[in-house]
Amino acid sequence: MKYYAGIDLGGTFIKCGIVSQDGALIIKDKIPTGSERPYGAIAKDMANLALSLADKAGVKLTAAGIGSPGTVDSANGVIVYSNNIKWENVPLGKAVSEILNLPVFITNDANAAALGESYAGAGKDFKNIVFMTLGTGVGGGIVLDGKLYEGGRSAGAEIGHMLVRKNGEKCTCGRRGCLEAYASASALIKQTRTAMAKNNNSVMWSICGGVAENADGKTAFDGMRANDAAAKKVVNNYIGYLAEGITDVCNIFRPDAVILGGGICAEGETLLKPLKRKVARSVFGGLKYAPVKILTATLGNDAGVYGSARFAMNKQKV
Amino acid sequence: MKYYAGIDLGGTFIKCGIVSQDGALIIKDKIPTGSERPYGAIAKDMANLALSLADKAGVKLTAAGIGSPGTVDSANGVIVYSNNIKWENVPLGKAVSEILNLPVFITNDANAAALGESYAGAGKDFKNIVFMTLGTGVGGGIVLDGKLYEGGRSAGAEIGHMLVRKNGEKCTCGRRGCLEAYASASALIKQTRTAMAKNNNSVMWSICGGVAENADGKTAFDGMRANDAAAKKVVNNYIGYLAEGITDVCNIFRPDAVILGGGICAEGETLLKPLKRKVARSVFGGLKYAPVKILTATLGNDAGVYGSARFAMNKQKV
Repeated sequence: MKYYAGIDLGGTFIKCGIVSQDGALIIKDKIPTGSERPYGAIAKDMANLALSLADKAGVKLTAAGIGSPGTVDSANGVIVYSNNIKWENVPLGKAVSEILNLPVFITNDANAAALGESYAGAGKDFKNIVFMTLGTGVGGGIVLDGKLYEGGRSAGAEIGHMLVRKNGEKCTCGRRGCLEAYASASALIKQTRTAMAKNNNSVMWSICGGVAENADGKTAFDGMRANDAAAKKVVNNYIGYLAEGITDVCNIFRPDAVILGGGICAEGETLLKPLKRKVARSVFGGLKYAPVKILTATLGNDAGVYGSARFAMNKQKV
Repeated sequence: MKYYAGIDLGGTFIKCGIVSQDGALIIKDKIPTGSERPYGAIAKDMANLALSLADKAGVKLTAAGIGSPGTVDSANGVIVYSNNIKWENVPLGKAVSEILNLPVFITNDANAAALGESYAGAGKDFKNIVFMTLGTGVGGGIVLDGKLYEGGRSAGAEIGHMLVRKNGEKCTCGRRGCLEAYASASALIKQTRTAMAKNNNSVMWSICGGVAENADGKTAFDGMRANDAAAKKVVNNYIGYLAEGITDVCNIFRPDAVILGGGICAEGETLLKPLKRKVARSVFGGLKYAPVKILTATLGNDAGVYGSARFAMNKQKV
């Protein structure tokens, strides 16, 4: 049996797990990233975490995969640019590989999570899936025929940077009107606070203890459950934008499933039911002939670990 | 040497060509479709045209490919729905196959054109291309790793039905704000006529001989060349919308090239130069690190014939 380390590099934590060739996550752990440190120190911690887990589990590693924030030059193992951990042209793959003395393969974190969900999570019964994670931004990962589609120099799958409104809200990428500016968790929070500012009597104020800064991705949903008109409007608008993004994904890929990740997914059917209704109404030719499932991710924080290990496994096969 | 018939079924003409396994189009011809006739009669004409061309060229056919308008169930050779030729659930593959006594494979016409450009036209040096044809609608075809990506039940690649403006112009698909409603040739003509109606002194009137119905996809470009302010605005807006669609395609796929087809491409650099500038400005992370070429199609009316033949060739290999 072969074993692969899957390392999910985040701004706050380095998560690592050992995954067997038949797909079992046999051990995992996490340590603080200390993202302000030089990359060499971070690479050392990543490698040592993988080695110590392999040691504890009593297995020998075949290769390691890394899911990293930012734009990743996957062919050369270089983080071209990351905004989360402040990196530019960091040869992370080489640094980790030299310590592990093993092949190391890197992809973007959203890609890794997509691959994880595809092979061990909500997507495991499907061939083609598109993964969308609703967090600070809207991350994307595309798995076609069970294989990650990364695009030229791994710069594709920027699902969050599809247009929903020409000349609309300013996006962090510099363009105006991207999906991310309307359908990320951050956008929902912004929309919630804007609605609160306009509605002094909204129940959302009491949910937040009277402090707008306390509003989070759940506030508008809670307000809606308390029958608050302003909150209902926020949720309805938010789901409307998300539905437009998912409709685009369906029209372009007609995947077997769109899988949603991020904290908002805890809303479950409260989110999914109206979302499915809106998508069914706007998708090209309807969903009857070529149905697309809309599902929430099931691996939670382990998706990146599974997916990074799988990424290494797939690359080794090639 | 193996030979394949490529049949491009259009509302007006049935075009057919014989393509050798090494990619040479050795003979071609076209006949009227007579699209109002029962599908059996059309299938018969399609098959007979292929057989007579093979006969003239003195070759034996291995298989035939068909590019058809509409939604195509490629696995079963069925035209699920076509608006162009009024068909629903037509088993065209079986009908043509029975006459030819050969395997027949069908895909959507835009997919066939994409595959044609990918293997014999503007895309032949690239691995990943997205083809967009600007006509009555905005058709799309996606070729990844040299292979057509059709999506579930061949219902993907509806590039024209990506959103550019939520709740915007009504699209023929029923949704509001699709790219097709802004960037098709039909949309350009509509935009031209609207501008003319608002500008009695526009030079576009004299270009059209005083008749708004004479306006076509070239009118605004001609007006711009005559230094007409209203025409310049039409062209600039149109290119702006098209650029947003191409930016989306770049962000999602980061293909090696986006290839544009349709009559408007005759404008050449007049279209491409501002288009490239706008895309470079709005694409995620810029185009420097992972460049995408924007090219015009080179096979013209033969793209569908080449691509249909290639589609059959690829399917036979599987």
